[in-house]
Amino acid sequence: MSVKPLRFADGALELLDQTLLPHEERWLRCTSAAEIAHAISRLAVRGAPAIGLAAAYGLAVEARRGGDVSAAAELLASTRPTAVNLRWALDRALEHGTDPDALERFANSLAQAQLEQDMAIARLGAELIAAGSRVLTHCNTGALATGGAGTALGVIVASRPRHVWVDETRPLFQGARLTAWELQREGLPFEVVPDASAAALMGRGLVDAVVVGADRIAANGDTANKIGTYGVAVAAAHHGVPFYVAAPLSSVDPSAADGGAIPIEERAAEEVLSALGTPIAPQGAHARNLAFDVTPAELIAGIVCEAGVLRPPYEAAIARALAARPKTLVLQDRAS
Amino acid sequence: MSVKPLRFADGALELLDQTLLPHEERWLRCTSAAEIAHAISRLAVRGAPAIGLAAAYGLAVEARRGGDVSAAAELLASTRPTAVNLRWALDRALEHGTDPDALERFANSLAQAQLEQDMAIARLGAELIAAGSRVLTHCNTGALATGGAGTALGVIVASRPRHVWVDETRPLFQGARLTAWELQREGLPFEVVPDASAAALMGRGLVDAVVVGADRIAANGDTANKIGTYGVAVAAAHHGVPFYVAAPLSSVDPSAADGGAIPIEERAAEEVLSALGTPIAPQGAHARNLAFDVTPAELIAGIVCEAGVLRPPYEAAIARALAARPKTLVLQDRAS
Repeated sequence: MSVKPLRFADGALELLDQTLLPHEERWLRCTSAAEIAHAISRLAVRGAPAIGLAAAYGLAVEARRGGDVSAAAELLASTRPTAVNLRWALDRALEHGTDPDALERFANSLAQAQLEQDMAIARLGAELIAAGSRVLTHCNTGALATGGAGTALGVIVASRPRHVWVDETRPLFQGARLTAWELQREGLPFEVVPDASAAALMGRGLVDAVVVGADRIAANGDTANKIGTYGVAVAAAHHGVPFYVAAPLSSVDPSAADGGAIPIEERAAEEVLSALGTPIAPQGAHARNLAFDVTPAELIAGIVCEAGVLRPPYEAAIARALAARPKTLVLQDRAS
Repeated sequence: MSVKPLRFADGALELLDQTLLPHEERWLRCTSAAEIAHAISRLAVRGAPAIGLAAAYGLAVEARRGGDVSAAAELLASTRPTAVNLRWALDRALEHGTDPDALERFANSLAQAQLEQDMAIARLGAELIAAGSRVLTHCNTGALATGGAGTALGVIVASRPRHVWVDETRPLFQGARLTAWELQREGLPFEVVPDASAAALMGRGLVDAVVVGADRIAANGDTANKIGTYGVAVAAAHHGVPFYVAAPLSSVDPSAADGGAIPIEERAAEEVLSALGTPIAPQGAHARNLAFDVTPAELIAGIVCEAGVLRPPYEAAIARALAARPKTLVLQDRAS
C-alpha cells in the first residue's frame, strides 16, 4: 500500500526523511516554518504536490507558535523555485487568514483534495496504458511525492503494467531509491536502469509508454520536470513511443506563456560530483546541476490531470480546464 | 600531459587501476594472462583500444612464463564481448606465433602504432571542431582508454574547445572519474553533468558538437559505444548538433553487417544498484545493466579514423578505408 510521507499531529508536521530512503525510515518532527523550509530545501520532503502540502502545513505550524505567517510564506516559497504548486498552496492558504485553526483546516482539506485528485489522475491515466504494457518513468512521482496516491506513478500502479523501467534519476537517485521502494511495496515487476538507457530500451522495442510528472506546466503545455525528462521525451518521439505527463491542475502556471518563462532551479555542484555522499570526480572539478528541464508541448501525447486527459492544442485545453475548476477547494468544509 | 595506463617491464604488464581513479593512483603488476583477463573484466583497464593492447601484452606475458598462449588468447577474448579491438589485437598477435620475444615485439609495435593512430585521429578530428566550440562527450576516450593519446577525447583536447561537457557516465562514472581527471591535467575548462542533462544543454544552445568513441563499428557505420551514447545521438539529431565518432579502424568489424550483429555486453545489476560501492536501491530490487548501445549510422555526421574522416554513405567509405589499410602494422620493425 502507498505510504504517507507527511503527517500532522499536535501542532507539528512530521516528515518521512526521504533523503534516508530506502535504507532507513526516519521521521522528522518540525515545529516551525523554518524547519519545514529547511526540510524542503534539502529534499527531505520533495515532489511538487507534497511540498505544496508541506508548505501549507508550515503556515499552520507557524501560526500555532505565534510566528509571522506572511514571512513564513515568503521563506517557504523561496525554497524551490520551479515547483509552482508550492506558491499555489501558499496563496490559497493565505486566503484563509492567519488563524491557526483555519490554516490547519485548510491544510487538511488540501491533503484530502490532493488525494482525491491523485485518485482521479490514476484512474484516467490508467485508461491510456494498454494491458501488458512496459512503462518507463523518470524520478519519483508516487505517494512519496504527493502525499496522496502519486501522479505518474499513481497512473502506472493503477494500470498494473507488465513491467516498469525505473530511471534511476541522477544525481539524487529518486528513481532508484524512492520509485523502486514504492514499486516493491506495490508488488509490481520493475528494473532500475541508468537514465541514459532509455533510448536504448526504446530502440529495442522494450518501452510501450512513458509517464512522468510535472513540477510546472506553462499555459501552452510546455512542462518542467526533473532533469532528464526532456531527453526521454526526445527519445520517445524518435521511437514513436507515447509520452504522457500526469499532474494536478495546481501544477499549471497560467502566467507562464511557455516553458521559457519557467524558472529552472540550479542546485549545488556537489550533488553531481558525489553519489550519496561518496566523492566521484577529482577534487576541484566543476559540475552543472540543472535540477529540471523543459519538455515542449509538441512532444507530449497527453496531460493527465484531475479534470481529464488534456490533448493538443494544449493552450485551449488547459484554459478550459482552469476555467472549469472550482474557485475554492471542493472538500474544504468536509475535510476539516 | 596525457597519462599512460599501462607499461611493460621485466616480463610483467603493469596497469594503472582505473577503478581507483581519480582518488588513488595504484599500479597492478600482472605476470599471467589470467591476471590481465581479470583486470580487464573488472575494468581496471578499459577502453576498447587499451584492452586490445593489454591483451596483446597478455600473450607476451603468458608466453614468457611458459603458459598456453592459445588458451590465454581465448580467455582474454572472452572478457569483453563488445570491444572488437580485443579480438583484432589477439588475432594479429597470434600471427606472430608463440615466441615470447616475437609477441613482446608485436605488442610494443601495436602500442606505437596505436599512439600514431591516435595522434592522426586527434589532428583530423580537431579540424571538424570550430574554434570556441562547446563540446559534449560521453564516457572516457582519453589516453586512459587507448594507451596512446585517446580517440574522442584526443580530438577534443586537440581542438582546444571553449568548454567541455563531461557526461558522468553511469553506472561506473568513467566521465566524472576519468575524463574529468584527464581534462584537469590538460588544463581545459569543463563541467561534469548527469548523463540525462545532454538534451537540456542542447535545448539551451550550449552544445556545438558531440564527439564520442566506439567499441565496435559495423560495416554500415552503426556504432556500439557506452550505454547512453545512442540517447545523446538522438538528442543531437533533434537539435541539429553534429555528432561525431572517433575510433581507429581496428574498431571496425567487417563481419557485422549492421548494429544488430554486434553483441552487447550486459554487466552485473549490482553496478546499477550501487554507486561506487554505496547501495542505492532497496534490497531485492532488480536492475538492467546494458553496458553498450548502438547508434545507427544515419545519426553520425562523420567517423574520424586514422585514415581520415569517413562520411556517409559509410558502407562504401568504411570498405575503402579497410581496403587501403596496410596488411601488417606499419611500425612493426621500427618499434621493437
